[in-house]
Amino acid sequence: MTLPFTIESQTGPARLARISTAHGPVETPSFMPVGTAGTVKAVPQGILEDLGAQIILGNTYHLYLRPGHELVRNLGGLHKFMSWDRALLTDSGGFQVFSLSELRKVKEEGVSFRSHLDGTSHLFTPERSMEIQIALGADIVMAFDECTEHPAERERARASMEMTLRWAKRSKDYFEAHKHEVPWNSVPALSAENAEGMGHPTAYPTAPALFGIIQGGMYPDLRRESAERTVELDFPGYAIGGLSVGESRAKTMEMIAVVLEILPKDKPRYVMGVGYPEEIVQYAAMGVDMMDCVLPTRAARHGLLFTSEGRINIKNARYAQDQGPADPKCACRVCARYTRAYLRHLFVSAEPLAGVLNTVHNLAYYLDTMRSVRHAITLGDLSGMLSGSVSLT
Amino acid sequence: MTLPFTIESQTGPARLARISTAHGPVETPSFMPVGTAGTVKAVPQGILEDLGAQIILGNTYHLYLRPGHELVRNLGGLHKFMSWDRALLTDSGGFQVFSLSELRKVKEEGVSFRSHLDGTSHLFTPERSMEIQIALGADIVMAFDECTEHPAERERARASMEMTLRWAKRSKDYFEAHKHEVPWNSVPALSAENAEGMGHPTAYPTAPALFGIIQGGMYPDLRRESAERTVELDFPGYAIGGLSVGESRAKTMEMIAVVLEILPKDKPRYVMGVGYPEEIVQYAAMGVDMMDCVLPTRAARHGLLFTSEGRINIKNARYAQDQGPADPKCACRVCARYTRAYLRHLFVSAEPLAGVLNTVHNLAYYLDTMRSVRHAITLGDLSGMLSGSVSLT
Repeated sequence: MTLPFTIESQTGPARLARISTAHGPVETPSFMPVGTAGTVKAVPQGILEDLGAQIILGNTYHLYLRPGHELVRNLGGLHKFMSWDRALLTDSGGFQVFSLSELRKVKEEGVSFRSHLDGTSHLFTPERSMEIQIALGADIVMAFDECTEHPAERERARASMEMTLRWAKRSKDYFEAHKHEVPWNSVPALSAENAEGMGHPTAYPTAPALFGIIQGGMYPDLRRESAERTVELDFPGYAIGGLSVGESRAKTMEMIAVVLEILPKDKPRYVMGVGYPEEIVQYAAMGVDMMDCVLPTRAARHGLLFTSEGRINIKNARYAQDQGPADPKCACRVCARYTRAYLRHLFVSAEPLAGVLNTVHNLAYYLDTMRSVRHAITLGDLSGMLSGSVSLT
Repeated sequence: MTLPFTIESQTGPARLARISTAHGPVETPSFMPVGTAGTVKAVPQGILEDLGAQIILGNTYHLYLRPGHELVRNLGGLHKFMSWDRALLTDSGGFQVFSLSELRKVKEEGVSFRSHLDGTSHLFTPERSMEIQIALGADIVMAFDECTEHPAERERARASMEMTLRWAKRSKDYFEAHKHEVPWNSVPALSAENAEGMGHPTAYPTAPALFGIIQGGMYPDLRRESAERTVELDFPGYAIGGLSVGESRAKTMEMIAVVLEILPKDKPRYVMGVGYPEEIVQYAAMGVDMMDCVLPTRAARHGLLFTSEGRINIKNARYAQDQGPADPKCACRVCARYTRAYLRHLFVSAEPLAGVLNTVHNLAYYLDTMRSVRHAITLGDLSGMLSGSVSLT
């Protein structure tokens, strides 16, 4: 069992499914909070559990630089290091080193870059990315890809896509040879509670799973070709990368639609780095199973709250005496206890509690949105979610 | 019933007692976490409750400037504003405006000062301090005093003490005429749960209580005179101010001892702005009932953790691979879940979760220390606490 994926219900192209990881189940469609440096910024792990997060994401680039993947491996892996016994996914580090536009250089071998922390030189190759991710011990590991810049000429996008395919093969070769070296493999990683939640207590993987990544810029035929050739390499799941990099929402949707046509329906499909609440509902409706984004957490730290009434900027003076909760329709612990007036006071006073409470609310909003999507799929009708989501923009 | 204070057990001069406020009981000796601007920095109120905090402190100076006491009153008072239905104490604002040494001027009428936020001019008088504290709606209100600078010549200390006595009288006159104007007075403030915890469900106050403050610099005779003349004014509780301002530990203890001899034994005695864990144990053993200090919360944000093995600086490289908890003898949620290695990583990465977790641990350590003191008083033996506390230094 590389990565058991059980579709439980379908409504049009949308699917309600369950991924069984060695660290518990992930019900999909799923939104994955981003925990860059081994922490979802400002949120204690116990609160993430209470919010119902079943999987979170760690960033290979950040964890490699600090505290270092060797240290994390020595301490038993990222799950143990950060005390998170549910599922973890790590990105490949590719996207983040490409973001260091002044500090990196791409070659066939890999990407050389300088640390944003201390300027030291480093090299990420597909093999190195696998080695680091295996040391971190994620349940889902991402192939090392080149995230094509936007806009990109057709030939540039093709060359980048070809490189990503070669790197995918190298990633897979290294990964298959070393995947059993994850730090949690030597001991049963699954707690009784997680096994129970899984439904099939014996059918869980004993090694992580590697996802391939589709690139191809904003060219439908390149996206199709990337999807076909990545699928030929045969991964237990596929991600669509290189989106939400400045293109229009319509273009993002077009690229997703083109790729979903080709990806196998019996494996999880993951769109990386998206998005606004209404976007993630829309992509789930199209048949996307997994998504991640820094938006709910980063926006929270800037005082931007997602609510059923739209986005609100909590520092606005109009909330100074507002005794209502951040979102009157939200049942999260922040909305149950605190007023907009108090949240505004915390934010304008630069109190650390502002970041905590705003982030908890935004994550609750995202995770509840995905819960509603899953419920709507069970009921066989996503139309309410999709029309409702318009008001979220 | 101004402020019911029931002594339940005594061991030497130390007392185990219970203060009954309109917002629940406060078991003493009690350490009060400081919630400067309506938030104990970085800690959600639910966690403070879980830690067993029965009373926290708000700062009149900060709340007056932002969000403003009128706003807080309009929103139902500080309890409601910050969603804290246990007891609250507010300081008078005096200590903080005196700390603005460049920006304030003391006259008989009061203290004029400029805001550290925007430079605007303000005047705090005894009457104004009472008005603000009543608007905030604290359960325990502090008289407006002059905190004598250290060192101070004898004549300066005497003049300052005399001013504090005149201001205490003015504070009391204004307070008695207006105390029923607290925002929570119009509705029963006591929840069923709090009433139950009180033991005497009907005997709770319907107005806040005003504490007098003893000054007198580092002169035992002035301290004695201040205590005698403040007691003559008749308050339901007494605080010792102007300590821990740079004097030796021995001097602090001497001043406390001198004053405690004079203060009535049937009323709560509060030493303001102290201290280290071993200090608060010592003062409790001397008969002090209440203490507050920013130390556990402020130190936490600088990576300093209080433990049964002494103070540790979590950023130290020696903790990089330390898989033990912050304090092996601590049962708090942070020590139950996270390693020193992880806490160090969060701190050196400047992650906001560092401040949250470090603060929760330090407060747990302080509150557990006071719990142990109370238990030791019940058992009739504080010697273990006092000798044990030496290792805390």
